[in-house]
Amino acid sequence: MTHIKATNITWHEGHVSRAEREKFLKQKGALIWFTGLSASGKSTIAYTLEHALVQRGHLAYVLDGDNIRHGLNKNLGFSAEDRQENIRRIGEVGKLFVDAGLITMTSFISPYRADRDAARKTLGDGDFIEVFCDTPIEVCEQRDPKGLYKKARAGELKGFTGIDDPYEPPLRPDWVIDASKTSPQEAAVILCELLEKRGKITALTN
Amino acid sequence: MTHIKATNITWHEGHVSRAEREKFLKQKGALIWFTGLSASGKSTIAYTLEHALVQRGHLAYVLDGDNIRHGLNKNLGFSAEDRQENIRRIGEVGKLFVDAGLITMTSFISPYRADRDAARKTLGDGDFIEVFCDTPIEVCEQRDPKGLYKKARAGELKGFTGIDDPYEPPLRPDWVIDASKTSPQEAAVILCELLEKRGKITALTN
Repeated sequence: MTHIKATNITWHEGHVSRAEREKFLKQKGALIWFTGLSASGKSTIAYTLEHALVQRGHLAYVLDGDNIRHGLNKNLGFSAEDRQENIRRIGEVGKLFVDAGLITMTSFISPYRADRDAARKTLGDGDFIEVFCDTPIEVCEQRDPKGLYKKARAGELKGFTGIDDPYEPPLRPDWVIDASKTSPQEAAVILCELLEKRGKITALTN
Repeated sequence: MTHIKATNITWHEGHVSRAEREKFLKQKGALIWFTGLSASGKSTIAYTLEHALVQRGHLAYVLDGDNIRHGLNKNLGFSAEDRQENIRRIGEVGKLFVDAGLITMTSFISPYRADRDAARKTLGDGDFIEVFCDTPIEVCEQRDPKGLYKKARAGELKGFTGIDDPYEPPLRPDWVIDASKTSPQEAAVILCELLEKRGKITALTN
């Protein structure tokens, strides 16, 4: 067993480049931005895609309410201003992850077009892939895994997207999925193909 | 050429775990938090370590003023409150990177002990490695690559750490380096050995 020697370490000005990390990871960084109503399938598809990518030897990461709202954005509420800042920070963190070479998924309702467009601008068109989970609200409301629609209908929850707060659908999403018609597994396959087409991952060969 | 089939994708509840990503990357996530005066060598050592790690087949990333202050934290100023929030967000982003499995370096003056201790608490002792760049201020001031000390001495820059704002040295840093005595290359070697000892990377073998 030996240790690397100081003389073996080459001096470099500045960061390891994104291109160097991407070459090492055999993939290109990308941000897949899932948007849609509560219970429209965003997280389920993101997780399934994450597993599919890891199975194919890629490094992927999901940013969602669980790791963002309780951490980085725990000092934000639900005012218009805070919602906007919430999405802005997610876009900026996504940009760092993409720069690190990761295929990154964000799973947030992100109801306002202007906020999503700002994130697209932060990332740049080539790195930002907008996936609209266009599942009918009746289906989302029937699923209602956290009982949120029920609370919103009862007036116990104010400003709930789709009930008493608007959802602004994307005008030019990169892909649209209705989770009542397409399974998470099928969605993951289609998204892998989309990542191949965009040159983010290489196609599987036999 | 063939495409992965939906039936080949296994359904998993929730995220790919940190342990699965770490196994894939053959490393464990860690946050090396560099702290010290302006021009004390933080970024130079962080970049050199990043290159050394990549040469050894590891994935590393540096968070510094260039990618944080102009992005995630561009809406923060230099008030006491904003400085605290600056460090808090960096700690939270570092935690996400560590969860993604990356060996992450942060390079910020981070002069206040309470802020660094809060970051340590956010990450947890096992993932937080505090490196104190204890380079004499005379050396830092002589280097002064951006002319900041000169401006601070001339009173053109207020609240400059080490001149008219305090630097609170770590009480129990994981490692202390004086960049006027140890080269960045030597520092990178020592830090690789520290990462080996902490079980974050495996030692090189012949």
